[in-house]
Amino acid sequence: MTEIQTPSHTKHRLVVVGGGFGGLEAVYNLRNVDIDITIIDQRNHHLFQPLLYQVATSTLATSEIAWPIRHLVRKYKNVKTLLGTVDNVDTAARTVSTADGETIPYDTLVLATGARHAYFGHDDWEPYAPGLKTLEDATMIRRRILTAFEKAEREPDPARRMEYLTLVIIGGGPTGVEVAGTIADLARDTLKGDFRVIDPAEARVVLIEGGPRVLPAFSDDMSAYAKRALEKLGVTVHLGHPVTECHADGVEFGGQSLRAKTIIWAAGVQASPAAKWLNAPSDRAGRVVVKPDLTAPDRPEIFVIGDTATVPNGGKGTVPGIAPAAKQQGKHIAETIKARLGGDQTPRPFVYRHAGDLATIGKRAAVTDFGWIKLKGYLAWWLWGLAHIYFLIGVRNRLAVALSWLWISVSGVRSARLITQRDAVDEIEAEAR
Amino acid sequence: MTEIQTPSHTKHRLVVVGGGFGGLEAVYNLRNVDIDITIIDQRNHHLFQPLLYQVATSTLATSEIAWPIRHLVRKYKNVKTLLGTVDNVDTAARTVSTADGETIPYDTLVLATGARHAYFGHDDWEPYAPGLKTLEDATMIRRRILTAFEKAEREPDPARRMEYLTLVIIGGGPTGVEVAGTIADLARDTLKGDFRVIDPAEARVVLIEGGPRVLPAFSDDMSAYAKRALEKLGVTVHLGHPVTECHADGVEFGGQSLRAKTIIWAAGVQASPAAKWLNAPSDRAGRVVVKPDLTAPDRPEIFVIGDTATVPNGGKGTVPGIAPAAKQQGKHIAETIKARLGGDQTPRPFVYRHAGDLATIGKRAAVTDFGWIKLKGYLAWWLWGLAHIYFLIGVRNRLAVALSWLWISVSGVRSARLITQRDAVDEIEAEAR
Repeated sequence: MTEIQTPSHTKHRLVVVGGGFGGLEAVYNLRNVDIDITIIDQRNHHLFQPLLYQVATSTLATSEIAWPIRHLVRKYKNVKTLLGTVDNVDTAARTVSTADGETIPYDTLVLATGARHAYFGHDDWEPYAPGLKTLEDATMIRRRILTAFEKAEREPDPARRMEYLTLVIIGGGPTGVEVAGTIADLARDTLKGDFRVIDPAEARVVLIEGGPRVLPAFSDDMSAYAKRALEKLGVTVHLGHPVTECHADGVEFGGQSLRAKTIIWAAGVQASPAAKWLNAPSDRAGRVVVKPDLTAPDRPEIFVIGDTATVPNGGKGTVPGIAPAAKQQGKHIAETIKARLGGDQTPRPFVYRHAGDLATIGKRAAVTDFGWIKLKGYLAWWLWGLAHIYFLIGVRNRLAVALSWLWISVSGVRSARLITQRDAVDEIEAEAR
Repeated sequence: MTEIQTPSHTKHRLVVVGGGFGGLEAVYNLRNVDIDITIIDQRNHHLFQPLLYQVATSTLATSEIAWPIRHLVRKYKNVKTLLGTVDNVDTAARTVSTADGETIPYDTLVLATGARHAYFGHDDWEPYAPGLKTLEDATMIRRRILTAFEKAEREPDPARRMEYLTLVIIGGGPTGVEVAGTIADLARDTLKGDFRVIDPAEARVVLIEGGPRVLPAFSDDMSAYAKRALEKLGVTVHLGHPVTECHADGVEFGGQSLRAKTIIWAAGVQASPAAKWLNAPSDRAGRVVVKPDLTAPDRPEIFVIGDTATVPNGGKGTVPGIAPAAKQQGKHIAETIKARLGGDQTPRPFVYRHAGDLATIGKRAAVTDFGWIKLKGYLAWWLWGLAHIYFLIGVRNRLAVALSWLWISVSGVRSARLITQRDAVDEIEAEAR
C-alpha cells in the first residue's frame, strides 16, 4: 500500500471540495492539526438542507438556514476558504482545477460535493418540476407557489383557476412528504382570509409516489401514519404509479392526466461529477463506489464522502444520503488523516451508525423512528424541531429559527412569504463583467 | 367643479395602484368605510424601503423588511388585493389596465406608484451602477459586494485585487451615506478574520457627491458631522464633482479616474410612468404636478401621491420624497374621500408636516434633526433605530429586526451574508409558461 508522504519542509496540504455537512465536519475535526487546509465551494454559504423545504414554503427566510462558510471557519487559522467551482481533478499531478482556471495542489483530497436532482433520463422535465437542493431552488419554488395563488385570485375561468390551485409533489420520501404537508398548511391556515375571490383551502395538494409506500425507508406503521396524517391535512396521496410525463400543464401517471401549474420534484438525486473527475467506478446515480475506508479505489490520498459517494453499510445496502451520515463520514476521515500524519497508515473502515429517521407532516405532526423508540404526532414534531435546532449552527440562528417556528405555531403567520423576481439587470451584468 | 357621483345601486369603487407607504396608508384609513377597494401592485409585498440598504449590506434579511400586501390588509373585508402591473389609465372610461390584459374600473383612483432610479440621461450606466429600490436590487448589490471580497481573496495581482477591494457609492444623500457607512462597517468589523489572503479592512470605500455637502437636505453642522463620521469609518468622501463616466471598470469624476469593480447608484430617482398614463404635466423627474389637494389637474377623481407626485410645500419648494410624506398624503386623501362620500366636495389642500431627518453612519453614529432637537452620535443611532422599528409593521418583524440589530451590536455578526445566484431554470421557465 502506498504510504502518504509529504516533503518534510512543507506542511501537509489538505484540499476539501464542498462546504456541506461532510466537508465542514472533516475540517472541524482537523482544526487543531498543523496542516494547511483549503475549502473550495461554488457557493459562499453552507446550507442546512434539511430545512430548505421551509424556505420553499415561506416558513423560514434564506438567511436562517445558510451561513457563509468562511465565517463558520474563521477561527481556524489553518483553514483558507475559496469561492470557486471545481471542474476537474488531475490525480497524477495531485491538483484540482477550477472553472476560472486556477490550479490548487493537494497532498490529500476530500471530495464532498453532494448531489443534485435526478430526473431518471427525463432532464427535459426539469423546467416544469424543479427540485429542492439549493437556496435558489427554494426561492424559485416559493415564488411559483405564491404566484399560483395570486394568479388563481385573478382567473375568471373556473377550470384554469383549479389548475393554479393544484400543486403536485413528485416523490414520497421525507422531502416530498414535508413539502406536501407544509403547502397544505400554507393553503389552509396561513393564507386563510388573505384572498377575496378564492378560498386557498380549496387548493388541491397532490403527492405522487411511484412505490407502494410513502417514506419507504421508515417502518410500515410509521409510513401508514404519515399517509393518514397527510390525508387529514387534505393532501391526496397516489401510490404505486410513477410519473410518466411532465410538462408545463401538468403530469401523467398511472394512465391518468392531472392538470397543475405547480410541480415540485422530490423524487431522486444524482451525485456531483466527482466520479467523472476521478475516472472512478460509480453506481447508477453517479456516486463514486468507495472502499470501506471511504477512499477512491487505487487513490488512498483521495477521500470521497457524503451524497457523492456510495458507501457500503455493513451488508445492509448502502449508507443513506442524509446529513448525519455525511457528518459521521467527515469525522471518520479526519481521524484517518490524523492517524496517517502520526505514521499509522492502516486502513480504517467506516461504520455507519443510523440514529433514526424524522419527518414532519405539516406543523402539528411528525414521525420519528429511533429503533428503540418511535413517536408520532405532536410529540414527534417537538422532537423533530429540537433536533433540527440543535444541529443548526450558531446561537443566533437557533434563536431566529426558534422565533420563526414559535410565531408560526402561535399565530399562523409565516413571515417569509415573498415573491422576488430575478434581476433583469443581472443578465446585462453577466455580459459586462 | 365636478361632483363625484356613483350610481346609487353600487358601492363606490376605489382603486389604489401601489402598495407602498402612500397607498397602504390611504387604504388603512378607509378600512371601515362602506366602499369597494382594490389594491394593485406589481409585487406581492410591501417593502420598508428605508431599511433596504441593510439588505444590500448583509445586515438584515429580505423577509425582515417586506410583507405580503394581501396579508397586511387581510382583516379589511372591503379590500381586495391583486398582483398585477398597471400599464395604463383610461381617464375617459375610468379604468386602469394591466400588462396581462385585465381592465379594472374605478370611481376614484389613487396612483401611488413610487419612483425608480434615474441616471440623468445615462441609462447605459445602470448595469454597472445598480440603484437600491427593490428587494432584487438589494440582493444583487449584496451579491456584488460579497463576491468582490471573494474575488479579491483569490486575485494574485495586487492592482486587480485593489479594484475588487474598491467600492464606490455615487450620491451623498441619506441612502448613499447609509450604504457607504455600512459597507465600511462590514469591511472593518464583520469580515475581519474571515479572510486569509486579504485584510478586508483594506477595502477602499469611496462616496462621490456632485454637490458641496453630503446630506444636502440637512443643516450645515449635521452635514459636516456626517462627513467626519464617514471619514472616521475610513470612507473617502469626494464633494463637488459629479460622476461624468461610469463603466465596468470604474468611474470618472472631476477629471480623475477611479478603478472599482463595485459601484452603487444612490444619486437620483425618477417617478413611475403615472404622468404618462394621465397625460398630465410633470416635472423634470417625471413626477405629476398635482393640485394642492393632491388631485390630477382636471381629474378630481384621480389622486396622485408619494414619490410619483410633485407636491407644493407651502412656498418652500416641494415635499420631499420620503416615507413619512407619502404616509401623510395617504391619510389626507383618505379623509378627502370620506368627506366626499358624505357629500362635501370642497377641495382640501394638503399641508406637509416635516417631522425631522434621520441618517445613520455605520452602526455607532447617526444624525437626527428634528428642528427643535438635533442629536449626533450614539444617542442619535438609538433614536434612529427606535423610529424605524416603530414604523415597521407587525410585532414579529419588530422583534426580528431588533434581534438582528442587537446581535450585530453585540457580536458584530451579520447573519444575512448570502451570495445567491439567479435561477438558471427560470430563464427556461419564462418561455415555458
